[in-house]
Amino acid sequence: MKASVIGSGAWGTAFAKVLGDAGSDVTIWARREAVATEIRDRHGNEGSLPGVRLAKSVTGTTDLAEAVDGAELIAIAVPSQTLRGNLADWAGLFPADSTVVSLMKGIELGTLKRMSEVIVETAGVAPDRVVVVSGPNLAPEIAAEQPTTTVVACSDEARAKQVQHALAAPYFRPYTSDDVIGCELGGACKNVIALAYGMAVALGLGDNTRASLITRGLAETARLGVALGADPLTFAGLAGLGDLVASCSSPLARNRTFGEHLGRGETLEQAQIATRQTAEGVKSCLSIRDLARANGVEMPIVEQVERVCHEGVDPRVAVKLLMTRDMKPE
Amino acid sequence: MKASVIGSGAWGTAFAKVLGDAGSDVTIWARREAVATEIRDRHGNEGSLPGVRLAKSVTGTTDLAEAVDGAELIAIAVPSQTLRGNLADWAGLFPADSTVVSLMKGIELGTLKRMSEVIVETAGVAPDRVVVVSGPNLAPEIAAEQPTTTVVACSDEARAKQVQHALAAPYFRPYTSDDVIGCELGGACKNVIALAYGMAVALGLGDNTRASLITRGLAETARLGVALGADPLTFAGLAGLGDLVASCSSPLARNRTFGEHLGRGETLEQAQIATRQTAEGVKSCLSIRDLARANGVEMPIVEQVERVCHEGVDPRVAVKLLMTRDMKPE
Repeated sequence: MKASVIGSGAWGTAFAKVLGDAGSDVTIWARREAVATEIRDRHGNEGSLPGVRLAKSVTGTTDLAEAVDGAELIAIAVPSQTLRGNLADWAGLFPADSTVVSLMKGIELGTLKRMSEVIVETAGVAPDRVVVVSGPNLAPEIAAEQPTTTVVACSDEARAKQVQHALAAPYFRPYTSDDVIGCELGGACKNVIALAYGMAVALGLGDNTRASLITRGLAETARLGVALGADPLTFAGLAGLGDLVASCSSPLARNRTFGEHLGRGETLEQAQIATRQTAEGVKSCLSIRDLARANGVEMPIVEQVERVCHEGVDPRVAVKLLMTRDMKPE
Repeated sequence: MKASVIGSGAWGTAFAKVLGDAGSDVTIWARREAVATEIRDRHGNEGSLPGVRLAKSVTGTTDLAEAVDGAELIAIAVPSQTLRGNLADWAGLFPADSTVVSLMKGIELGTLKRMSEVIVETAGVAPDRVVVVSGPNLAPEIAAEQPTTTVVACSDEARAKQVQHALAAPYFRPYTSDDVIGCELGGACKNVIALAYGMAVALGLGDNTRASLITRGLAETARLGVALGADPLTFAGLAGLGDLVASCSSPLARNRTFGEHLGRGETLEQAQIATRQTAEGVKSCLSIRDLARANGVEMPIVEQVERVCHEGVDPRVAVKLLMTRDMKPE
């Protein structure tokens, strides 16, 4: 299969490695020439995945037309809030009937749309051509060929299976699903819950509290999902629970790490400087909060994370509020 | 309220502390005189919870009749497989209409009964007098007054609420439930899944694999639960997911630690010597496997743990088998 990955960050690069190791010819589109050259000539991407070797069948370019030319599968891994602007330029270049895979985990600010909705709307791609891949997928571990499972979700079962087989590298184990909404919400919300988890870690809270935070976080994610038409069982699966646990457990995960900085009392700006990036959850907490409110769903953890990130609330106050709500049935 | 806790291990002692801090007079029954004396005279139990101070209203005895005399609430925290034998001696002493709280997480070998079933059968206590308390409740963290949530399950809602209020210490947050079966299965199965998790840790597997193990482990627990009449939502809650995540995440948790020893290639006997105890999951994996088979439920993780613990299978082989099952929908 001929495949293209748009975006040369850690997850885009790891995904290209999986496709290459499973037998596809893959072209990664990178914004910077130096990165494209490094991928093309040395089959590596030290900035995103230090020490990792990509298959010879994985190459790089900064020319989007070249990257997607003849591609049967186009995977997109750019920052969520830049997707719409990027697609406006790119969508005309996607081959007819190509499968578009979203690797992004966010909800668009303002429109409150999921990434697959933005793709359908902006790229003029039919919903049954859009596939969401999500699960407990820390990129450095995939790149190190640690055994990893994931979910491949599409309203078209045949297309989900096609992507499942395109990803069948020995260390990568994809399961299919038809619940696109559930998979996307699981991914977007876990970024926000992982921020709260990171704050709890920095505040010295133990494993009892942390496990409660994961449990209650998944519960509020599922409430939002069900209100939007997702299958509640998706949240008990790899793209819900699995992704959330991996992102909270790993000291390498971005949102958790960012939350730890906030929990130590740093401002948003200080945390951004310290981590050299913005965690997706910092923006998504705004759009997810708005989406929850618009649908009459209570998401107390998301509300508190938003207040810490954007309203200057002390994380100690926010976490304490979460732990002292009224007693009630579970 | 007058309460009694039978068993002076870490969880029994921590539970007595919560009851005492919430305002009850508590008598802990200990098997050994030295422990009972230490609790009575110095309000501590260094062997089980080093450094922890119990309220003045918490005392100790080795005389069971004295411990349960006039008790409105009797909590039992003895090793699961010893419960039936112990109850045969004790049950006649329980005051009429006292609430019996099970803190135990196991399935009886041979009979394949849950602990609440053993209590009903052996102590002649009506099912609506038996309450199960379960959740992400690592005893040392509760003793350190870390914020902790739990589930109080009983078929009689009024009794669940009574126990909920008896446990309302400032750092302890109980939720009520009517799903006794689900809470007990969640607790028993997590011990076995935590053994598998510990093996994965020892084998150097990363957070992606570990998160998959938690997710798939909860899924097989829920399958068994549903077959036995539990509410599937219980497994997404604190007594399912919450307890499982806490037990897998904490390097202090017994079953995880025991699994790590097995994962390093130690025999059951070596692991027992190294940890100075037997993890509950080592026995429960046999009874849970049998219970699953009797109900036609597939529990691949439990099956592999049983093979490692009792059939000499190499943990590397067992974990590899788990990660390479056929591709399928989730």
